[in-house]
Amino acid sequence: MAVNLAPPDQLLPVPGARVGSACAGIKQQERRDLALFEFVDGTDIAGVYTQSHFAAAPVILARARQQHSRAWVVNSGNANAATGKPGKDDAAHVSAHAGRLLQIPDTEVQPFSTGVIGERLPVEKMTQALDQAYTDLSPDGWLAAARAIMTTDTVEKGVSRQFELDGQVITITGIAKGSGMIKPNMATMLAYVACDANVVPGVAQRLIEDAVRYSFNRITVDGDTSTNDCFMLACTGVAANDPITGVEHPDYAKLSAALTEVATTLAQALVRDGEGATKFVTVQVTGGRTAEDCLSVAYTIAESPLVKTALFAGDANWGRFCMAIGRAPVQDLDPTRVGLWLDDVQVAAGGLMCDAYTEEQGAAVLAQPEFTITVDLGSGDARETVWTTDLSYDYVRINAEYRT
Amino acid sequence: MAVNLAPPDQLLPVPGARVGSACAGIKQQERRDLALFEFVDGTDIAGVYTQSHFAAAPVILARARQQHSRAWVVNSGNANAATGKPGKDDAAHVSAHAGRLLQIPDTEVQPFSTGVIGERLPVEKMTQALDQAYTDLSPDGWLAAARAIMTTDTVEKGVSRQFELDGQVITITGIAKGSGMIKPNMATMLAYVACDANVVPGVAQRLIEDAVRYSFNRITVDGDTSTNDCFMLACTGVAANDPITGVEHPDYAKLSAALTEVATTLAQALVRDGEGATKFVTVQVTGGRTAEDCLSVAYTIAESPLVKTALFAGDANWGRFCMAIGRAPVQDLDPTRVGLWLDDVQVAAGGLMCDAYTEEQGAAVLAQPEFTITVDLGSGDARETVWTTDLSYDYVRINAEYRT
Repeated sequence: MAVNLAPPDQLLPVPGARVGSACAGIKQQERRDLALFEFVDGTDIAGVYTQSHFAAAPVILARARQQHSRAWVVNSGNANAATGKPGKDDAAHVSAHAGRLLQIPDTEVQPFSTGVIGERLPVEKMTQALDQAYTDLSPDGWLAAARAIMTTDTVEKGVSRQFELDGQVITITGIAKGSGMIKPNMATMLAYVACDANVVPGVAQRLIEDAVRYSFNRITVDGDTSTNDCFMLACTGVAANDPITGVEHPDYAKLSAALTEVATTLAQALVRDGEGATKFVTVQVTGGRTAEDCLSVAYTIAESPLVKTALFAGDANWGRFCMAIGRAPVQDLDPTRVGLWLDDVQVAAGGLMCDAYTEEQGAAVLAQPEFTITVDLGSGDARETVWTTDLSYDYVRINAEYRT
Repeated sequence: MAVNLAPPDQLLPVPGARVGSACAGIKQQERRDLALFEFVDGTDIAGVYTQSHFAAAPVILARARQQHSRAWVVNSGNANAATGKPGKDDAAHVSAHAGRLLQIPDTEVQPFSTGVIGERLPVEKMTQALDQAYTDLSPDGWLAAARAIMTTDTVEKGVSRQFELDGQVITITGIAKGSGMIKPNMATMLAYVACDANVVPGVAQRLIEDAVRYSFNRITVDGDTSTNDCFMLACTGVAANDPITGVEHPDYAKLSAALTEVATTLAQALVRDGEGATKFVTVQVTGGRTAEDCLSVAYTIAESPLVKTALFAGDANWGRFCMAIGRAPVQDLDPTRVGLWLDDVQVAAGGLMCDAYTEEQGAAVLAQPEFTITVDLGSGDARETVWTTDLSYDYVRINAEYRT
């Protein structure tokens, strides 16, 4: 049950990028489950990869090949994770086939996989489907690719933005997937963003690291992190803007802000489609001594099963928030300075429930599909925001029945 | 739905301790919700208290009064937490009334509360019920007290052990409550243990800290920690054993082992009665470089919503375990050394699913109400064990409907 989430109306082509997709029948028949991205020579590719100890075979290969990459192959339905040497061979085999089709060395193709962990890739099916995805390559293939990379997602996630840079219209288009095993660093998610801005090699990596910090690294559905997460950015450089040489360049901030906005929209779309989510919840912590303190409190609230079930029930229970804030691993938190708001309704001040607060007021806020929980720690100027969902029966159902 | 959990048949009296209980009607009418414990002069009292920033008023008072304590007053139905100065006054008022009844200074009475957070105690009802609890005081009041301290618990938790020390029969009896908001340091739980062993003042504190480490601090139901957790120990000293002077005393280890066994039995009883629990799961991590590494992996597995829903479904999914181990905050974990067993069935070796493993074998283990997940990290000699439950529809139901 997605929260206020519609599929994108339109995803704009990005000059210098072509996208194709096809049906390999990896897990389900008759749906696209394989996508191919090709970029023009000179594209600057950047990535942020899972920090799991069990990084999947394709992630290991993709990370190693980033510097000279010109193409991405992505499949859903099978994560090719915890598959050892055979898994690496499979990922290499699939990307080599893509390289032959695209007439580039296999080391310039980055493979990505998402789906069930621990099973071998159906390599033959995938190479056959790659032939079709290659034929399908076009500037307009983004929406179909957004569908091809879905697993338990209920809707395609994608966004396009256009803005002017140095007198040139720049296009950014991105797609993403993920709805469970969602937590920062990274989430169980894949995201692919391209833009045609001209940047010197290496700048894309700085751009993606800036963008991920306040987008994908600020969401949590269930606190779980997968073996296959990747967020990729391709700057094709086809636009005629003055090449952006680094953070000191006058256009860097504008491009970075636009990319961060695209990444944030995609990240929030993952949360809105969170497994079993019935609410989209912004958790904002202000007045912290440090950003780390604010994040620590925000995540403790956002990941507390007791808070999440209360949000599901619409139960405006100060006790649950109080419990979660109380156990946040923050030094010297002073409970007598803590305030809590549900949207504009003040629930607590000075660590105590406000006399004027009634649970009817709080329940009215929590009855909405979207709302903000604000905690003020009363100890400083730092602030941070994370986005999360409630914990519903459907979360249990989806995850208990995942493979059946 | 408790897992293999029956109420205790019999709880033995502990010489030097008397227990009474009564119905104050705090949250529900017609059930006992208040307990009073009285100990003979010279009893050595020890405690371990919640580490929440929002420690409740009674916890703050109980901690301050530990050294000279001779009595405990416990109520369920209202946690007297996040209640500020009025809450402290209420806790002081109730314990002062108990002191008058017992003819001891109010500073020798420790108050404890569990239940809804953020509401004022019904002090008048409680003092009236204290009169009845005082009349009810007897060496045999333990089982009724175990019932009086319950909240969402479905069954009373208690255990007695007798053993010989220095030629004397020593009795330990303990009771506990708690089934949600359960996680170490402490859990949402209260536990009260008494024994008649003769120890010199201060030894009880060392005994309780030894006992808590491998019992209450090794369980997790939902990773949440409450504002009111306390684990208390009273050594009445009525037995005629040679007084135990400290850890170097020849009888210390035997007494410590017996207390740890009682604490572990109570801690496991909390997990067995975990909210919505349908499985009792032992998570054992071996081969770690340090105990901290083992605990980190064990808790990441035990608290992962994706693992817990798979356990509920009986889905022997190597991918879920792999994901959880992979995100454990341990440095330099080598995935190629990791092995996994479900009871005696080996699922993975060297970080890969075993060829001989079939999910039918794993599913047969997970179909049992109790089983052990063993992870070997292959990197050292450290080992740790924690106990947990699955995550079921009923967990969501119980917590979404808690106050309705």
